[in-house]
Order: sequence, then C-alpha cells, then structure tokens
Amino acid sequence: MRARDLVSAFPTVLLDVPVLEATRLLVDHALPGLIVVDRDDRPVSVLPGTQVLRLAVPRYCQDDPALARVIDEAHADVFLQLLADRTVRDALPQDERPLPVADEDATMLELAAIMAQTRSPLVAVVREERLVGAITLHDLMARLVNA
Amino acid sequence: MRARDLVSAFPTVLLDVPVLEATRLLVDHALPGLIVVDRDDRPVSVLPGTQVLRLAVPRYCQDDPALARVIDEAHADVFLQLLADRTVRDALPQDERPLPVADEDATMLELAAIMAQTRSPLVAVVREERLVGAITLHDLMARLVNA
Repeated sequence: MRARDLVSAFPTVLLDVPVLEATRLLVDHALPGLIVVDRDDRPVSVLPGTQVLRLAVPRYCQDDPALARVIDEAHADVFLQLLADRTVRDALPQDERPLPVADEDATMLELAAIMAQTRSPLVAVVREERLVGAITLHDLMARLVNA
Repeated sequence: MRARDLVSAFPTVLLDVPVLEATRLLVDHALPGLIVVDRDDRPVSVLPGTQVLRLAVPRYCQDDPALARVIDEAHADVFLQLLADRTVRDALPQDERPLPVADEDATMLELAAIMAQTRSPLVAVVREERLVGAITLHDLMARLVNA
C-alpha cells in the first residue's frame, strides 16, 4: 500500500486567490486544510486549517489569547472582514517548516510520520513534483484501523 | 457571540482507554481530535488528530519521515497493532504545551487565537473547569465567514 493507492483529488488554490475565498473553500467543503499550488501545479504550501485561521488573527492575540478577550466583541466577530484585500500569497507563513508533501511512492508509515512531524492533517501527493492529489488524516487512519 | 453560543456536545475519552479504541472513535465519528478527561469531567488533554497519529509512529520516523520508507511495507501497514496494549495515559505527549481549553465566556477571537496558537482544530469549552463540550475549527470558521 503506497500513497498512490490512497490519494484522492483535492481542491487547490493559487497564490493570488483572496484569503476569504480560500477560507470559504475550506468551510464549504469541510476540508482539513488547503493546498496552494503554482501555475505548474507544484505545491508551494500546504496550510492546515488552523494555519488558515492564523491569517485572520492578529499576532498579539496569537501570542496571548487572553488578550483577545479585551477586544470589543462586535469587532472580534467581524475580524475576518479585515482580510478582504489580502491574498494567499500575502498570508503564507514566513517560517521555513517542512511541507507535508510526499511522493506517490510513499508508504503508509512515511505518510503517518509526515503528518505527525508537520502536525498537518493533510499531505499533498506529487508525481515528478506536480500535484496528484492529497491524503487526509482521516483517509490514513481509517485505512490503518481497518487494516 | 461567546463560546457558550457555539459549543456542541463532544465525545470524550478517559485516561485508561486503549489507544486503539480512542483512534477508532476518532475515525468512526470523523473527529478532528480527542478530548481526554478525568473522572470529574475536567479536560486533562486535548489531542489534535495529528497528535493521536504521533502515538502510533516510532519516534525516529517522526524525526525523519524518509527513514520510514526503509521499513518493510507489510510491517508498516500494521504498526497501529503495536499499540494494542497501550492506554491514552501511556501515550499523552510529555511536553507542557498550552491546552486548547476555553471558558464558556470566551469570545470568537479568543477561540480563534487559541486554535491558531495551539494548532488544534478543536477547543474544549469548560464551565468552572468541567467540560461543557467543544468547538471545532469548522464550527468557528463557518460562523466567521457567514457572519
């Protein structure tokens, strides 16, 4: 059993898509994260859902969530609107952490190790660097517990 | 809009539940993670799905997923079986990171900040330290983009 046997098609976003559109894609399709690709379909980033949320939360609130409580509630409820002009490119994390990307030859254990290491519930699967699709945490776990 | 307005009932596990049973709960109910409680219903840990997977992946593979590829494939496919005797208590992460737990008075922004900070797609909601339920990333995002 290799990645190619488990992989499914997965929606992608380009770098110049507005953050709000990307967020809506995630919500409407109940995705565990987003795969950002370039125009040649090469994954440039894989954003777990919690990292998409990072785009919408002011930095000082992420450092200390208790600070968020002092913000006016009406304002807090519309904070995503503040992102209206931002694109996915503007919002990508700056840190150089390993991307959850695997070759289609990857084994189940390799996929699990990648998810565990990157804390991503989603692994992008590539063939010769181009996206084939994705494997979610639930796809993988369902296969494991029913093996 | 406060945590109490968004919270839903959420299955919990006790510390002495076998890891495999906890994993199956996660898979069968398509949960984004697990809430571990003590016998007084106080959350002692909140495990994002990717961290549940950490329990099943040997440490050296997490440090370097490429190592996983050299492991015999048949063995890799059944690695979850190795956990048969382990309980959730045995398997909890040792590091003392902040738990994704919020009071029922928490605002939307506070919930978002907690998810972003802890990278957990799930926040346990408490009233006087006892679990009331949980709010998932998707619950929160759906509320935000439709606000």
